[in-house]
Amino acid sequence: MDAKQFVTQIADINDNFAQWYTDVVLKTELVDYGPVKGTMVIRPYGYAIWENIQKDLDRRFKETGVKNAYFPMLIPESYLKKEAEHVEGFAPEVAMVTKAGGEELAEPLVIRPTSETIICQMYAKWLKSYRDLPILINQWANVMRWEKTTRPFLRTSEFLWQEGHTVHATEEEAMEETMKMLNVYKSFAEETLAIPVFTGRKTEKEKFAGAKATFGMEAMMLDGKSLQAGTSHYLGQNFAKAFDMKFLDKDSVLKYGYSTSWGVSTRLIGAIIMAHGDQRGLVLPPRVAPIQVIIVPVAAHKGGVIEKAKEIESKLLAKGVRAEVDTRDMSPGWKFNEWEMKGVPVRIEIGPRDIENNVAMIMRRDTLEKSSLSLDNIDTAIIDLLDEVQVGLFNKSKKNRDARVVEADSLDGILKGVEGKNFVKAGWCGCRECEEKVKEMAAATSRVMCDEEGVPEKCAICGKPAKHKVIFARAY
Amino acid sequence: MDAKQFVTQIADINDNFAQWYTDVVLKTELVDYGPVKGTMVIRPYGYAIWENIQKDLDRRFKETGVKNAYFPMLIPESYLKKEAEHVEGFAPEVAMVTKAGGEELAEPLVIRPTSETIICQMYAKWLKSYRDLPILINQWANVMRWEKTTRPFLRTSEFLWQEGHTVHATEEEAMEETMKMLNVYKSFAEETLAIPVFTGRKTEKEKFAGAKATFGMEAMMLDGKSLQAGTSHYLGQNFAKAFDMKFLDKDSVLKYGYSTSWGVSTRLIGAIIMAHGDQRGLVLPPRVAPIQVIIVPVAAHKGGVIEKAKEIESKLLAKGVRAEVDTRDMSPGWKFNEWEMKGVPVRIEIGPRDIENNVAMIMRRDTLEKSSLSLDNIDTAIIDLLDEVQVGLFNKSKKNRDARVVEADSLDGILKGVEGKNFVKAGWCGCRECEEKVKEMAAATSRVMCDEEGVPEKCAICGKPAKHKVIFARAY
Repeated sequence: MDAKQFVTQIADINDNFAQWYTDVVLKTELVDYGPVKGTMVIRPYGYAIWENIQKDLDRRFKETGVKNAYFPMLIPESYLKKEAEHVEGFAPEVAMVTKAGGEELAEPLVIRPTSETIICQMYAKWLKSYRDLPILINQWANVMRWEKTTRPFLRTSEFLWQEGHTVHATEEEAMEETMKMLNVYKSFAEETLAIPVFTGRKTEKEKFAGAKATFGMEAMMLDGKSLQAGTSHYLGQNFAKAFDMKFLDKDSVLKYGYSTSWGVSTRLIGAIIMAHGDQRGLVLPPRVAPIQVIIVPVAAHKGGVIEKAKEIESKLLAKGVRAEVDTRDMSPGWKFNEWEMKGVPVRIEIGPRDIENNVAMIMRRDTLEKSSLSLDNIDTAIIDLLDEVQVGLFNKSKKNRDARVVEADSLDGILKGVEGKNFVKAGWCGCRECEEKVKEMAAATSRVMCDEEGVPEKCAICGKPAKHKVIFARAY
Repeated sequence: MDAKQFVTQIADINDNFAQWYTDVVLKTELVDYGPVKGTMVIRPYGYAIWENIQKDLDRRFKETGVKNAYFPMLIPESYLKKEAEHVEGFAPEVAMVTKAGGEELAEPLVIRPTSETIICQMYAKWLKSYRDLPILINQWANVMRWEKTTRPFLRTSEFLWQEGHTVHATEEEAMEETMKMLNVYKSFAEETLAIPVFTGRKTEKEKFAGAKATFGMEAMMLDGKSLQAGTSHYLGQNFAKAFDMKFLDKDSVLKYGYSTSWGVSTRLIGAIIMAHGDQRGLVLPPRVAPIQVIIVPVAAHKGGVIEKAKEIESKLLAKGVRAEVDTRDMSPGWKFNEWEMKGVPVRIEIGPRDIENNVAMIMRRDTLEKSSLSLDNIDTAIIDLLDEVQVGLFNKSKKNRDARVVEADSLDGILKGVEGKNFVKAGWCGCRECEEKVKEMAAATSRVMCDEEGVPEKCAICGKPAKHKVIFARAY
């Protein structure tokens, strides 16, 4: 199979980005469709990316004092109803267990779409005194939201995520936590996924059902659409009051706690694909790539080639690099194509002539540049190169994104902006009608507010005085 | 609160082991009851043990070439019915989703009680050629079995586990994998949990629903009862045939694959508690203890004490030891009791006089022995001590267990043996009636067969020629 064949298996990235995405996720064996509509199987190559995401994020959470726990997946339906906005937001998309152990259940149980309710119920039981605060707990879990239109990683009925749930004595501390975790997400997205993000507060219309305020991070995909890559919610006392979550404060007064919740999901894998990919397939940032370096022996039957490849592999593994030799009985060209499609950041080619000259050929997946490296110190040179690729990917993404952020002062300007695959910054009066008009006319939504940049004088939609500066975009 | 009070909070370990267990798991905050009957909340201290179990086991799996993946939790009810024995075993205890997204589902969905069916369905799609074999995949997931009688960690409607599912070209390879993973479990239990286990084949009556053969590992708890701590199943072509899982072999003939599955769960936490605990509470093996070393400052208000405690903590953390200083505003005695109850393997006490003498007081949780250690090289001394505790716990458990394994050649002997809190080895003719008689008369079940020790002449129950040597025990 030659390079052309491989490429033609994947739809044109410019002509049909949606089909390109589907082709890439299936052909690279990141994912497959599950038998139940809207479900996905995360295959080993996709799951290994998730494991790398988990390891990195988990470390960042723990550095802030958060600990992991696990709460039951089944929630009594009545819990969902305790917070009015929450039930309104989630009731339409829950899956319900009505039978178990051969019997009808007295009360239907909901498979968690998110766990604020059951977690606050437990916190209310545990929380007694200000000495118990803050409570800083996260869980890695599966959740279920019955969606009508689904796509692997981006929107599936079941997905994997983490959800942090914290409780604090004061509004200030809870708000501080909300922002702290938003910033953890931002650093993670930029440093580890190499994806630049905008963070900011969401409008009332776009906020989490039950939150006082939602803060989101938004990433631009190659097609100019925005992907909500993570959210951090300030819940105020909404859930504390619904679940009677009180503590005896220093002043001997019983008070409701202030809570937060924050989460990211397997959606992030979709973000990586759509932020960095190209016509050949995936381009994975080294920090999350399951295989960082693929070593392809050339003329592998010749004496010493496999041995040298294995020697390089050992050196790299010893330095903590995820390296692998491809010893399969296929042509080097076939392997080159496959690993390019699978987005492995760096390829090493090693053949008899290279060994003679004490070098190896190197190919960077991000730029497709080839070069030659001395076999002496190849391990440290590769580590440097991986760092260079990581930073290079971020810079390239940022440059591309920044070139596609425009300003508009009219509805028409917003429309033209999003039609041109841009994020559009515009003044907004703060009313829901104007947001809905943008949705109706431009099929775009407000992503986050960026008032700190300076609020324009007028609302781009109605012309009344603006209260906020908003990023509008089409979104996943 | 003095030592006595702490102790009296926990039921007597000899008089009422079941209550002792419940007291310990709740009071040490390993776990709490969830709102839905039979569910549990795994609290941070308990979940941290699970994380340590996961990390260790996951490494062992990956060393054998296994990769992780994730399969959907919801399984069409019809899948369960494809393997006759499987559905018979699991149908009575499944939880069913009948409504989702506001609508009745056309076909009810089962929350996985185990995932052979959905995984084999996917494997059947992926598997084409002998080149695709072996398939070696594991998943870490939650599962649901609607049990009538539940106890935290030991038997809950939802629990966390890992389930490995492999496919091989031949019976021999599949059987080899089955035994390999059984041995991974045994090494893990003995080296990491410090729990000696018997491994062996289960009888037909006790095997997994749908397996050709089940191999189990059984651990003796302090009350002489056995806990099934892990199982590895050889599934033959049962699921391959049910799900049409075929491959084109080297000889160009389409053949069914041979599969295996193997799993351990959060039940292992129950095993740790009941294998090592004592009247004061938990005794955790260092390799899974969330905190390996607790440092308690004495006369903490005196200058330099907290600083020295933190200095020791830093030294230990730098060497990879999970150490923590307890700076809370409580008396040292209160802290000693709490950390003893929580099973922290090693306690360091440091006060002004110790600092003067350049020493610290050390307490080993397993033996309750106190000694004094020089502050020079305290880090390496503690690392050695942790190893000593780890090995000491295993040796103690093994000695205790081995002293309680007896042989019997009559039903009465079996009854007396299990009444005396022993494992009883006895000859068995191989018929189900005899097994059922033991259950009825002695409330004991066959745990594993140990024919390799030599099969006795006669069945201890019916007196006919024995075919196997079996370990009988009361079990969790």
